[in-house]
Amino acid sequence: MSAPIDFYFDFSSPYGYLASEKIEALAAKHGRGVDWHPIMLGVIFKQTGAAPLTMIPLKGDYSRRDMARSARFHGVEAFRMPSKFPIPSQAPARIVLWQKQRGPALAVNLIHALYRAFFVDDIDISAPDIAVAIAAKCGVDSAAARAAIDDPAVKDALKQENEQAIARGVFGSPFIVVDEEPFWGLDRFDQAERWLATGGW
Amino acid sequence: MSAPIDFYFDFSSPYGYLASEKIEALAAKHGRGVDWHPIMLGVIFKQTGAAPLTMIPLKGDYSRRDMARSARFHGVEAFRMPSKFPIPSQAPARIVLWQKQRGPALAVNLIHALYRAFFVDDIDISAPDIAVAIAAKCGVDSAAARAAIDDPAVKDALKQENEQAIARGVFGSPFIVVDEEPFWGLDRFDQAERWLATGGW
Repeated sequence: MSAPIDFYFDFSSPYGYLASEKIEALAAKHGRGVDWHPIMLGVIFKQTGAAPLTMIPLKGDYSRRDMARSARFHGVEAFRMPSKFPIPSQAPARIVLWQKQRGPALAVNLIHALYRAFFVDDIDISAPDIAVAIAAKCGVDSAAARAAIDDPAVKDALKQENEQAIARGVFGSPFIVVDEEPFWGLDRFDQAERWLATGGW
Repeated sequence: MSAPIDFYFDFSSPYGYLASEKIEALAAKHGRGVDWHPIMLGVIFKQTGAAPLTMIPLKGDYSRRDMARSARFHGVEAFRMPSKFPIPSQAPARIVLWQKQRGPALAVNLIHALYRAFFVDDIDISAPDIAVAIAAKCGVDSAAARAAIDDPAVKDALKQENEQAIARGVFGSPFIVVDEEPFWGLDRFDQAERWLATGGW
């Protein structure tokens, strides 16, 4: 089996959520796995001068329309913009990183559960106790997960994940890397697919 | 015949150039024409806080790679990043707007000639005399075209075109509007195509 596709995402990213619902099928179709990397876009935006799309004049109105339209276009029927947006995503990102070390398969379930809680059920997953409750439903030990959020080692792991992402040129969400070839956005999945099929062009 | 597709573009926009090579076939396939609108992204970027992609940390390196890759992906084989980039695009935009009033068919030829001069032959079309020379090759009267660039009425027409674009929510290049539905970027042509075929979803 070839190297997994690296999938970088922020839990506060609508296009990241949509892509999280599509990436596994894309990868599986080409005999690949997915390596999930939660990142903190806010930190990266300080380097690029970017801001959350919905807060930008002109672009904000368009992007809200485009997110809903893109969800339907890509067949992700369950999507709605959360009433509180954007959110800081440290708590869910840290639980996922911590769980990834203990059991990657459960970490993937947890990513989907957290993303869907935010972008389908409008649950504010930035609150540590809420993120932990979702983890518990997935079978994660709640006390340990709650402790992980404030664990300096886990905090540091997230910082390192972010720094490695930046060093690799990652600046958005979703952002995938296929055999060192970078693709930014769900709207590059068509190019990523051809890359997977042909090895480049 | 249904309403034409409005195609907004800046002559300094690489993705605008790529889209200019694809939009007519897309429109024709669905029985539509194209209404070409040159705009000045620099003015619009002041409202959105955006900057030319290639000048942004992290995004700059990625975008140069993505532009070349996207050109090949979309079958626009003739593309290279100009050695001087970005450029102010008032001169070519004004000649095109002026020519559009006199003869829209020739204006379309002129748009392609100017875009290809910049993104294929690395010719700096921001220089009025160079833009005029390209217009002359297309059959436009050079003296009249040169005068149009400094004509206050033509300058004003470009300002109005820009203001109308902003009022309509346009903030990037390429940006197309199909029956009031906005699509930003060549990477939304797949959605625009489905919209043209189905009337929305």
